[in-house]
Amino acid sequence: MANQEDNLFKNVIAHAKEYGFIFPSSEIYDGLSAVYDYGQNGAELKNNIKEYWWKFMTLLHDNIVGIDAAIFMHPTTWKASGHVDAFNDPMIDNKDSKKRYRADQLIEGYIEKLEEKIEKEVEKAAKRFENFDRDMFIATNGRVVEYKKKIDEVNERMKNAMGSGDMVEMKKIIDDLEIADPISGTRNWTEVRQFNLMFSTEIGSLADDANKIYLRPETAQGIFVNFLNVQKTGRMKIPFGIAQIGKAFRNEIVARQFIFRMREFEQMEMQFFVKPGEEGKWYEYWKEKRMRWHQTLGLGAANYRFHDHLNLAHYAKAACDIQFNFPMGFRELEGIHSRSDFDLKSHEKFSGKKLQYFDSEDNQSYVPYVVETSVGLDRMFLSVLANSYKEEKLEDGSDRVVLRIPAPLAPHKVAILPLMKKDGLPEKAAEIMNDLKYDLRCFYEEKDAIGKRYRRQDAIGTPYCITIDHQTLEDNTVTIRDRDTMKQERVHVKDLRSKLIDACSINNLLRKI
Amino acid sequence: MANQEDNLFKNVIAHAKEYGFIFPSSEIYDGLSAVYDYGQNGAELKNNIKEYWWKFMTLLHDNIVGIDAAIFMHPTTWKASGHVDAFNDPMIDNKDSKKRYRADQLIEGYIEKLEEKIEKEVEKAAKRFENFDRDMFIATNGRVVEYKKKIDEVNERMKNAMGSGDMVEMKKIIDDLEIADPISGTRNWTEVRQFNLMFSTEIGSLADDANKIYLRPETAQGIFVNFLNVQKTGRMKIPFGIAQIGKAFRNEIVARQFIFRMREFEQMEMQFFVKPGEEGKWYEYWKEKRMRWHQTLGLGAANYRFHDHLNLAHYAKAACDIQFNFPMGFRELEGIHSRSDFDLKSHEKFSGKKLQYFDSEDNQSYVPYVVETSVGLDRMFLSVLANSYKEEKLEDGSDRVVLRIPAPLAPHKVAILPLMKKDGLPEKAAEIMNDLKYDLRCFYEEKDAIGKRYRRQDAIGTPYCITIDHQTLEDNTVTIRDRDTMKQERVHVKDLRSKLIDACSINNLLRKI
Repeated sequence: MANQEDNLFKNVIAHAKEYGFIFPSSEIYDGLSAVYDYGQNGAELKNNIKEYWWKFMTLLHDNIVGIDAAIFMHPTTWKASGHVDAFNDPMIDNKDSKKRYRADQLIEGYIEKLEEKIEKEVEKAAKRFENFDRDMFIATNGRVVEYKKKIDEVNERMKNAMGSGDMVEMKKIIDDLEIADPISGTRNWTEVRQFNLMFSTEIGSLADDANKIYLRPETAQGIFVNFLNVQKTGRMKIPFGIAQIGKAFRNEIVARQFIFRMREFEQMEMQFFVKPGEEGKWYEYWKEKRMRWHQTLGLGAANYRFHDHLNLAHYAKAACDIQFNFPMGFRELEGIHSRSDFDLKSHEKFSGKKLQYFDSEDNQSYVPYVVETSVGLDRMFLSVLANSYKEEKLEDGSDRVVLRIPAPLAPHKVAILPLMKKDGLPEKAAEIMNDLKYDLRCFYEEKDAIGKRYRRQDAIGTPYCITIDHQTLEDNTVTIRDRDTMKQERVHVKDLRSKLIDACSINNLLRKI
Repeated sequence: MANQEDNLFKNVIAHAKEYGFIFPSSEIYDGLSAVYDYGQNGAELKNNIKEYWWKFMTLLHDNIVGIDAAIFMHPTTWKASGHVDAFNDPMIDNKDSKKRYRADQLIEGYIEKLEEKIEKEVEKAAKRFENFDRDMFIATNGRVVEYKKKIDEVNERMKNAMGSGDMVEMKKIIDDLEIADPISGTRNWTEVRQFNLMFSTEIGSLADDANKIYLRPETAQGIFVNFLNVQKTGRMKIPFGIAQIGKAFRNEIVARQFIFRMREFEQMEMQFFVKPGEEGKWYEYWKEKRMRWHQTLGLGAANYRFHDHLNLAHYAKAACDIQFNFPMGFRELEGIHSRSDFDLKSHEKFSGKKLQYFDSEDNQSYVPYVVETSVGLDRMFLSVLANSYKEEKLEDGSDRVVLRIPAPLAPHKVAILPLMKKDGLPEKAAEIMNDLKYDLRCFYEEKDAIGKRYRRQDAIGTPYCITIDHQTLEDNTVTIRDRDTMKQERVHVKDLRSKLIDACSINNLLRKI
């Protein structure tokens, strides 16, 4: 991460705290690692993202319904899903620093250093030659070719070791590359061991009857175990989808990057059940639909890209990410996966229950194939927050920090600001607010100079400020100030509601998809 | 619980499953005790209840903001709140049946039997005397007086034992009353022990660094630890409130009564911070406001009542429940508590951080007092579902089951039903649905006779059915059928939207409070 981006990210994190978007969890007790709380503005932004997703899925598709399954599930669920046996990260300890690392991340760090070395060679050469051809240089320069060969070799070894769960080989890679602990500087490592990322707890009060259960590490399984319940009670016909928003938990060895990777996080997942053989068509359909959903927000089409998974799980037919241009670079925002019938078949095996669909058109029963779309809600939040954060130099030479949050997602739609705290202006403001507040989240403030109040609304992303002044008392008009252009226009009070709802409603945003 | 009510409750539970409201969690693995999943109709009803509460709190009160704190909190939080030391239930095992019980519930069962005996005496006497005076009989009949004396004596002993945490005395009460295990029939009991109801897990991957943390047993503490963060970043002035909806977890020894007492459940809590000395006023204010919020739903004012807590926690100034008339009788739906400064003071002590508010009017700092309103979301759901469930005998002699869910809370607002699957009726229906679906949750169905389709919508509580028939193609009118009256009226398509939104919008419901 370049320095400038690094600073931007730091500023976003500081802003998020200062303006009530994100607080470290239990901060008065010095926080809990990789867990965060959503403050008064964060909770509203998060709710709006949820609403945008939920309505898109369930209102705009009459063959998709939403459910809300519990975090606690029968423990056999996680046997069937493979999480008990295979949801592990490889971990390694340095005996001198006593620090724990993810073995794969140590090796990736080594690769990143090689990539930096290549970049340095490129930069050096670019300065020396006028008509510098980057691709040609990389393909032919002896030192660079060597680095690239090494990178490919290490990547290949790691991929094989991780794929087969060979932790002895993982250790050997670290030894062969002579990777040292960044803290102690030594190569005094323990063996590499598998660490299961699920949180467990005990349910029930009888010691001999107590069951070890897990906090779900993903919400998808709550959909799979309810597949037949929903299909039958909802009389659903294939193809159909089940959507869900909810918490999931992963005991990450190294959690980092603010709310990008948390131990407690939230997912917005939809599992689409299709006839076997049609999964390819629906995979393409959902790739396109989901990308359109993201881009309709207006954060800039160039900030999104598809990234195909090269290493597919053995059961997967296809998988890709929608990546977003986060402050630390392009990273996964949403995953789209063609999962075959792996999950339902596995639950059939472990539960002994048939999870088949009877297709009345074909007069046959089958286990459907599944295409999944899965958004990290907190990542989505970060994408909106970080992308909206702007430090601007204004024409008059002053600075402002503004969150250019898409209006339908903004925590408050409108600030109601009486110009002065007298002459009946607050009373008139209250009257306007009472009319608007049922349909639009309003922020009322009467203290401080109007310019100062505008800046505070900029900082929390309020798209419109309504100012009630003396003219308002005469002709029932107010000024509306636009957050992004900072332009003001005079509008009659009776036109306020429809104008604001047009600009700020999630339902209207959905119409644009 | 009388037999008729018992049957009603069973029917509600069966209906909830059959129509996609509530499924047992992980049912294909035979369920997880006292954990439930919300199905496709349940999830919508639950979301609507949340929206009704959240908007009431945060849109209608400009001094209340919402947050969304994590389930994981720093473990010292639960030392400060008293949960680590005192959040226990008394449990006892029968050595023969190996069954575990809550000691207090065994004793309450004994008391209930005495109360049943009194009722039998009353019934017997009522049959014998024509001008039977119930109160007089209870006050004077020798046997009844004896029973009542016993009840008071046992209640008093239990209250003292529970209050002081004297588990030896609890055991002694059970022995003295000669209470037998309903299963084994024996009095072969273990000692009574305290059982902590919090679920625990370990966070972090380092064995020597791993922290035992808890799944929050209540959401309130997430508000208290964030009190200053919200107050400062939101520039809140006392009195102000912080609202939150979220999951909480309690490892109940005996969980029962469907979703009334679950191990994983959801709360809607608001903590209102006031100046010390003003808590009485605000306690009364919130009692009245919250009751009005409930009654505005229209489930019947007689189904709600206040129930004052007689045994207050040592720090509490006042506490009451809003009880609802559930199928099993009047039970707690919401709690309203005047909690003094106990929680914030305790967090000050354990965190070493000042949690004071500077009151600029009085020019002094103080720890605010707190008035809490706390609704069990799942209980609220059960109150709506059970109260709405009606088995009706119609004029033509047929039966129907209908959920008379208040329209703004109904999972679907309107069903769009082309009378026949031909002649362009489905296409016309799709056109109408495309216009309505962004603002109203629509259910589309074209299969089966129209009467059958109406009944299915009755069963999931859809307040309006729109039927598209041949006349629609001629004059662009449709019939709207009302779920409750079953009356139909002909309406022009262009009037549909405003008519339906008027009747079904949560925002309009809020205007009535």
